Amino acid sequence: MSQGIRVTVWNEGIHEKEMPRCQEIYPLGMGGTIASYLEKQPGIASVHCSLLDDPDQGLSEEILDNTDVMTWWGHKAHDQVTDENARRVQERVLKGMGLIVLHSGHYSKPFTSLMGTRCNLKWREHGEHGEKERLWVVDPAHPIVEGLPEYIELPSTEMYGEPFGIPQPDQLVFISWFQGGEVFRSGCCWHKEAGRVFYFKPGHESFPIYHNEHVMKVIYNAVKWAAPVRMARGYTQGNYQPLEQLD
Amino acid sequence: MSQGIRVTVWNEGIHEKEMPRCQEIYPLGMGGTIASYLEKQPGIASVHCSLLDDPDQGLSEEILDNTDVMTWWGHKAHDQVTDENARRVQERVLKGMGLIVLHSGHYSKPFTSLMGTRCNLKWREHGEHGEKERLWVVDPAHPIVEGLPEYIELPSTEMYGEPFGIPQPDQLVFISWFQGGEVFRSGCCWHKEAGRVFYFKPGHESFPIYHNEHVMKVIYNAVKWAAPVRMARGYTQGNYQPLEQLD
Amino acid sequence: MSQGIRVTVWNEGIHEKEMPRCQEIYPLGMGGTIASYLEKQPGIASVHCSLLDDPDQGLSEEILDNTDVMTWWGHKAHDQVTDENARRVQERVLKGMGLIVLHSGHYSKPFTSLMGTRCNLKWREHGEHGEKERLWVVDPAHPIVEGLPEYIELPSTEMYGEPFGIPQPDQLVFISWFQGGEVFRSGCCWHKEAGRVFYFKPGHESFPIYHNEHVMKVIYNAVKWAAPVRMARGYTQGNYQPLEQLD
Amino acid sequence: MSQGIRVTVWNEGIHEKEMPRCQEIYPLGMGGTIASYLEKQPGIASVHCSLLDDPDQGLSEEILDNTDVMTWWGHKAHDQVTDENARRVQERVLKGMGLIVLHSGHYSKPFTSLMGTRCNLKWREHGEHGEKERLWVVDPAHPIVEGLPEYIELPSTEMYGEPFGIPQPDQLVFISWFQGGEVFRSGCCWHKEAGRVFYFKPGHESFPIYHNEHVMKVIYNAVKWAAPVRMARGYTQGNYQPLEQLD
Repeated sequence: MSQGIRVTVWNEGIHEKEMPRCQEIYPLGMGGTIASYLEKQPGIASVHCSLLDDPDQGLSEEILDNTDVMTWWGHKAHDQVTDENARRVQERVLKGMGLIVLHSGHYSKPFTSLMGTRCNLKWREHGEHGEKERLWVVDPAHPIVEGLPEYIELPSTEMYGEPFGIPQPDQLVFISWFQGGEVFRSGCCWHKEAGRVFYFKPGHESFPIYHNEHVMKVIYNAVKWAAPVRMARGYTQGNYQPLEQLD
Repeated sequence: MSQGIRVTVWNEGIHEKEMPRCQEIYPLGMGGTIASYLEKQPGIASVHCSLLDDPDQGLSEEILDNTDVMTWWGHKAHDQVTDENARRVQERVLKGMGLIVLHSGHYSKPFTSLMGTRCNLKWREHGEHGEKERLWVVDPAHPIVEGLPEYIELPSTEMYGEPFGIPQPDQLVFISWFQGGEVFRSGCCWHKEAGRVFYFKPGHESFPIYHNEHVMKVIYNAVKWAAPVRMARGYTQGNYQPLEQLD
Repeated sequence: MSQGIRVTVWNEGIHEKEMPRCQEIYPLGMGGTIASYLEKQPGIASVHCSLLDDPDQGLSEEILDNTDVMTWWGHKAHDQVTDENARRVQERVLKGMGLIVLHSGHYSKPFTSLMGTRCNLKWREHGEHGEKERLWVVDPAHPIVEGLPEYIELPSTEMYGEPFGIPQPDQLVFISWFQGGEVFRSGCCWHKEAGRVFYFKPGHESFPIYHNEHVMKVIYNAVKWAAPVRMARGYTQGNYQPLEQLD
Repeated sequence: MSQGIRVTVWNEGIHEKEMPRCQEIYPLGMGGTIASYLEKQPGIASVHCSLLDDPDQGLSEEILDNTDVMTWWGHKAHDQVTDENARRVQERVLKGMGLIVLHSGHYSKPFTSLMGTRCNLKWREHGEHGEKERLWVVDPAHPIVEGLPEYIELPSTEMYGEPFGIPQPDQLVFISWFQGGEVFRSGCCWHKEAGRVFYFKPGHESFPIYHNEHVMKVIYNAVKWAAPVRMARGYTQGNYQPLEQLD
């Protein structure tokens, strides 16, 4: 990755159009806010913002050809992402693209397809102030926690609770505590063939989560962690032909 | 599981019709051979044989309602299994049904959907005698190796080699060695929500693999390992409604 | 395990002698309470109670020869367990004995030696009523959760919090939520060579935790899960001689 | 790690004194050969060579204070490393130092203490030419395989075979195939509290393994992977005091 990481921030972009509170908190949109943060960080070569409303839903082959790591935020319109586009994202991950799935992206097609499970979880209707969440670091050796304190406290969030219908993470990095009595595996890593996937819970549309410095640090750390590993030229990555018979 | 485990042995059943060598080795078919072994073992309540040619491809709701653990063998006709039936199997696993995927079942729809990856692997064209494989036990604490020696030797098999495009197993039980220079993660366990999945490599249609006592012992051990865990009544297993707002 | 599991309940036995509240809650002692529960369960062949004050600290070769699974509760006197006895327990685990480490046993010599880490954790001084804990099931496919609801609620416990200085569990079964704002990996499984280890957090000496039916169900389930797997006779379990040179 | 990684290459240094063949293959010693390679790589700030014969066995507090990642090669004199020095290395790992354990270092005190197991393995007496080994990459998403082909072939090595008495790796990166019929988990990663450990099998003293470019690339990749993660100042890393009682 010596030339720097090319990031695509995929954002559904519906709350930003329809919900005054979201517009007020995120004048740039959630995607724009994340992109604006990432593009100032060392080692990031470029940041492209994609929206559901873009041509090809912002997921064309050309865009993916220029993406090392993708972040994904979706909530209301998971079904509108076409099966073909979702499959394209999944395949790119299997061939090496990093994928950072944020908050309600747990129900997105690329994430559920990669997990092979339903990714259900508990949640609670929240009022204006939401409730308190603490994300505890449980793997202090993981590069995703570089620079963090022992927990991140969010005074107002939406609760997501266990059981979370995911396969066991290869590495569990954060566990969240919620005021109302629940816990949640809120930072989870998987290797999926040649690609890496990180699910990170923070990010509700009606709270200023993406203005929290620690949350943003995690997203940046995760982008670096998920950047593709390049094996030597000629590594076939799963497009096998049968080998010749032994003598 | 005090009443015993109800097993469904799903078998594609095509080689058994078309390939004299397979018929000769397996007069009962591969499915029938496995079923005939399992039904004699302690703790097995019933064994049902399903075939691709059966009504509903042997995967009706009624059959699944009466299945605790399913074994799956397929090779030539993965695409003929309907998406609806494959999804039904996947959902049953997520709700608790055990699934034992055998040999070329690595490319079956239920398995690739549960893994979220392509499940590619290397293989070699084989002649009449195939090549030698040794399955080494690498997790001697796992119930699937009960009663086994330190490795199972198969004098004539088809080679399956790494890289195998699966997510990292929750537990890796066997690693295979092949005469021609390859290795393979040949016994792999995953928890998938409430269900358990075991992939086991042995089982080519042109070698008498399912007449090997150790191979059959592994399948039986795996059936016991994969039998559903029953939580208390009322456990909602992922069909969540939002909780009420905190005061 | 067809003849049933032989359990040894190892208990430090000091609070039982010195602390009136502990005596009141546990007239049989904590060890006696656990033993009395286990010996009534199906599949348990025998339950032996060992105490720190016993000859050989209750850890003689003879006792270990007759133990399939050991439960361990210690708190004040970890250092009094001799290095030789601790090593004997560790070696038995590596050769197949199951070990269930309870509550403050996280600092015991056998546990820290098996983990290879310091096993530090956070805790809070507690008053007469302690605080509320909920142990959430996060792996509904695990045999240790058989028969449980989605969480176990303990109204009065001592808080144990992250970071918990353990290696990543092979399987994480429970995560605890505490009233005061902490989380804890409270049910953790590891395979250690031929043996299995389960750490389970509940069990403070001044609260009636071992009278909770769900806590006891977990201990019983864990005993069954940790029972030794027997490979075929002649499996050498790590006492290797060099093999002869290849021709 | 913006200032670069400070590496200490710890080498037993006995074969280099006693064994002409080793001297011939490694005029700089094995440690010197590794150090000489690493110090030319980008991102490496310094490389210090430590020997068993050095003052404090090359493991003084001062040396460790200036070490981000240590590589360890030992074989004949594991017992000569003092318990105090071995414990110091272990504790440094738990506080964040990376550790790369090479070849027969599997039996070293720091490694067996960190694993909590005996780390036994099979081996075969070898003649002048040893036997062929292939290290297959089984986790193409892992940074340790950056730049590698799908397997590394070593024409002459010593066989190490399963069962290998280690806990299940957090990430299994390489599996070795041996001419004589064995397999081995030859590249294994663990997180141990704040530190990372990589075991890598290649490196016999009588074959020119550390002149193989791919082997050296793996060691360099592993050094980068194992470099310490720095959490924010004030992260207590396990030296806990009890928290105050809840109101």
